[in-house]
Amino acid sequence: MSYSPLLTDLYQLTMLAGYLEEGMADKPAVFDIFFRHNPFQGGYAVFAGLDTALGYLENLQFTEDDLEYLQGLEIFRPRFIDFLRSFRFRGKVTAPPEGTVVFANEPLVTIEAPLAQAQLVETALLNIINFQTLVATKGARIVHAAVDGTVLEFGLRRAQGPDGGVSEARAAYIGGVRSTSNVLAGKLFGIPVKGTHAHSWIMAFPDELTAFRAYAEVFPDTCILLVDTYDTLKSGIPNAITVAQELRSQGHELVGVRIDSGDLAYLSREGRRMFDEAGFPGVKIVASNELDEYVIESMRSEGGRVDIYGVGTRLATCAGEGGGALGGVYKLVRIGDRPKLKVTSDVAKATLPDRKRLLRAVAPDGSFIQDVLCLADEDIAPGATVYDPSNPLQFVAIPQQARFVEIRGVVMEDGVRTAKSPPSLDEMADRSRDQLTRLPQGCMRFINPHKYKVSISAGLNELRLQLMDEVQRGYK
Amino acid sequence: MSYSPLLTDLYQLTMLAGYLEEGMADKPAVFDIFFRHNPFQGGYAVFAGLDTALGYLENLQFTEDDLEYLQGLEIFRPRFIDFLRSFRFRGKVTAPPEGTVVFANEPLVTIEAPLAQAQLVETALLNIINFQTLVATKGARIVHAAVDGTVLEFGLRRAQGPDGGVSEARAAYIGGVRSTSNVLAGKLFGIPVKGTHAHSWIMAFPDELTAFRAYAEVFPDTCILLVDTYDTLKSGIPNAITVAQELRSQGHELVGVRIDSGDLAYLSREGRRMFDEAGFPGVKIVASNELDEYVIESMRSEGGRVDIYGVGTRLATCAGEGGGALGGVYKLVRIGDRPKLKVTSDVAKATLPDRKRLLRAVAPDGSFIQDVLCLADEDIAPGATVYDPSNPLQFVAIPQQARFVEIRGVVMEDGVRTAKSPPSLDEMADRSRDQLTRLPQGCMRFINPHKYKVSISAGLNELRLQLMDEVQRGYK
Repeated sequence: MSYSPLLTDLYQLTMLAGYLEEGMADKPAVFDIFFRHNPFQGGYAVFAGLDTALGYLENLQFTEDDLEYLQGLEIFRPRFIDFLRSFRFRGKVTAPPEGTVVFANEPLVTIEAPLAQAQLVETALLNIINFQTLVATKGARIVHAAVDGTVLEFGLRRAQGPDGGVSEARAAYIGGVRSTSNVLAGKLFGIPVKGTHAHSWIMAFPDELTAFRAYAEVFPDTCILLVDTYDTLKSGIPNAITVAQELRSQGHELVGVRIDSGDLAYLSREGRRMFDEAGFPGVKIVASNELDEYVIESMRSEGGRVDIYGVGTRLATCAGEGGGALGGVYKLVRIGDRPKLKVTSDVAKATLPDRKRLLRAVAPDGSFIQDVLCLADEDIAPGATVYDPSNPLQFVAIPQQARFVEIRGVVMEDGVRTAKSPPSLDEMADRSRDQLTRLPQGCMRFINPHKYKVSISAGLNELRLQLMDEVQRGYK
Repeated sequence: MSYSPLLTDLYQLTMLAGYLEEGMADKPAVFDIFFRHNPFQGGYAVFAGLDTALGYLENLQFTEDDLEYLQGLEIFRPRFIDFLRSFRFRGKVTAPPEGTVVFANEPLVTIEAPLAQAQLVETALLNIINFQTLVATKGARIVHAAVDGTVLEFGLRRAQGPDGGVSEARAAYIGGVRSTSNVLAGKLFGIPVKGTHAHSWIMAFPDELTAFRAYAEVFPDTCILLVDTYDTLKSGIPNAITVAQELRSQGHELVGVRIDSGDLAYLSREGRRMFDEAGFPGVKIVASNELDEYVIESMRSEGGRVDIYGVGTRLATCAGEGGGALGGVYKLVRIGDRPKLKVTSDVAKATLPDRKRLLRAVAPDGSFIQDVLCLADEDIAPGATVYDPSNPLQFVAIPQQARFVEIRGVVMEDGVRTAKSPPSLDEMADRSRDQLTRLPQGCMRFINPHKYKVSISAGLNELRLQLMDEVQRGYK
């Protein structure tokens, strides 16, 4: 997939035109992408979308057709259109690898480029990183709720547009949802594709048993029957047991049944009992219908016996607190040789200025203690005192026995990816799974999770206080 | 934009393979798309996405690359891959024009095609129609809340993937949001593009006044200044007034200011007062920051003085009741010469079988009385008795003086669009605006709206009861 450079807000282009007029287009600038609150009022986020974003940056180029359209708007001077004709992104990008567990207020992607280049790409970068990080996080939450159950993604029909289903399947995989019904996502990203059949299959035949038999005949070894078209316990499961017996007599085994309506916890328990009593303890029970982490957790706590959770709408659209969007922002942290911060009426919400490193303090047993942000050129080691970014008077010391792990690296230099081969989605999914086991357990809770600490170094704390002071003097 | 035929759920392909094996692939089938509840617990929906959907159907074709991928999955026989190689959609499509106001349980798009063709397209059609109808409806609600204020869409950075922002801008336009910040949507659909500037513009200069002056210099006649970077009332608006005076002395007028944080109702009132007192009653106030129909309605009721509402995240992601998705479904209503319905444990939720017409009873003054569904070949005229689909014992007579308007028409025949030229987005937007004025006023309410009546004809009622009876005898 390639993205048009017009996939941006008009104001990026008007600002670019302005910077060009003011002779500022080439001023070196540094922007950070970060979000202010973990999604879903949760304890963490899973970073995703980087490879998609780098692909966008690498291929950014206006076509003559694009330029003609812009010219026709009659807001831009010919000189600006010429500037766009030769526009390429030639900046440097620093980011964590996808699948990294990240937290509110941490710089995720940092862009260092001439001001015009860095400004133009804001909208598309936010679009890509916001959505994929949101979905990867939702996926990780759902997988966590399912414990040892398997999660299958099938949200395409309710996703927000075609790409809302395709890049969603990619991001969900990074979060741990390792199969999808979406065939295009399967082809593009190599994600295993899975599926059962629809109610229309049943209705296309004179009756349910005939429909089941026909499906089992065509797919004797991969057959999962949808049992709720008429009545799950009185019709669907008894008919499925009949077909399971017939399959067995021919040397095959029924793989499972899917329940798509009704009280899923109750029906799965009853279904499990009926299959066990009929001699089919191996038949899997698939449940679907508006599932998410909360429903799955409550079904499990009621003793539901679901083996595979089919998750659609609520994963695809990331329903829940926050309205289906990660509020990632893109803020200027340095221009020329001046570090910058944005203050608001609430001092605790002032942004973190300048180029920064993101370090994770890791205990000898591999568990994560806390994260620390410091200035790019600052020396910091275990034992250091670090500060609460929302209260400069509150500080804590990093334990001497901890080690610091650098979370981010340079992933693009002069507009070209530094990695020789693209990272695999499996590596990313393995990374998120591994890191989530090292978090304080309370961070995984859905309600009132433990707040993982993200502190700032002495150097960053000092620079921030100094800049805040300057800004406040400036306009008073 | 073109859509891959792989933009589907795997189970569509396994069902197709099954139908082929069973000799049923060419059986004539009829499917309806409908939704069971109006989105956002509202009183109506605005139908959108049809032209996108027809483009998908017209161009549907597997590439050799697609077929190779499917073969590699090792679930399909070579005969099925050959079948897909020559696959085209050659069906008939019946639908209302985009911008039509529609309601729960009404057949929106009806597909009549050989079973295999009709089945394959389910997922993509639902994806397109669900999302665009959802956004068009959200857009109409927001425009309604804004009354005489203007609404500008700028949700791209928080939209669900690139297309979540692009097709969203199209659908929002159909719902009445007649400008966007999204340049690509502007180019693709001819939507007017608008914008201001970002906080980063301010921060790229030594101070706010210098930044404002620079912007005004480049765009003296289209200048909207963002006034909340430091302090809206103490810094932003006073500086904007200075620039407005300077512009005026050079023969230009400041267009407006944008407020993006804080108490927008209060700040807009104060800002209005400050500009009026300074002699700038023409300067427009733009407000943005997590706006939706509820926030806009409450700002207005508090006496907010906003002229232009910039709406982003909550329009783009359709936040609100229902989790960012329209629950449209695709149900088989006829196969061969047999009308079909799907029953559930709740009889009132049984689907409406067979080919149907969708009629709107319109009063002599043009207002909408109610909708009626009847069988395709049924004669029905004003005066007829019609039935409540959730209670066959409840009926009402259509007033004699009403006239019936046919809401849907054939838009595709043998896989080819019937319209010679594509309909314009302006027509669609005009249609939704016009129809919304003819609805009972209570349907527009956001909380507990009036429920617009959708009845079924005597013929449809009778067929449905008869089929329900057959089904229930079948599995007891």
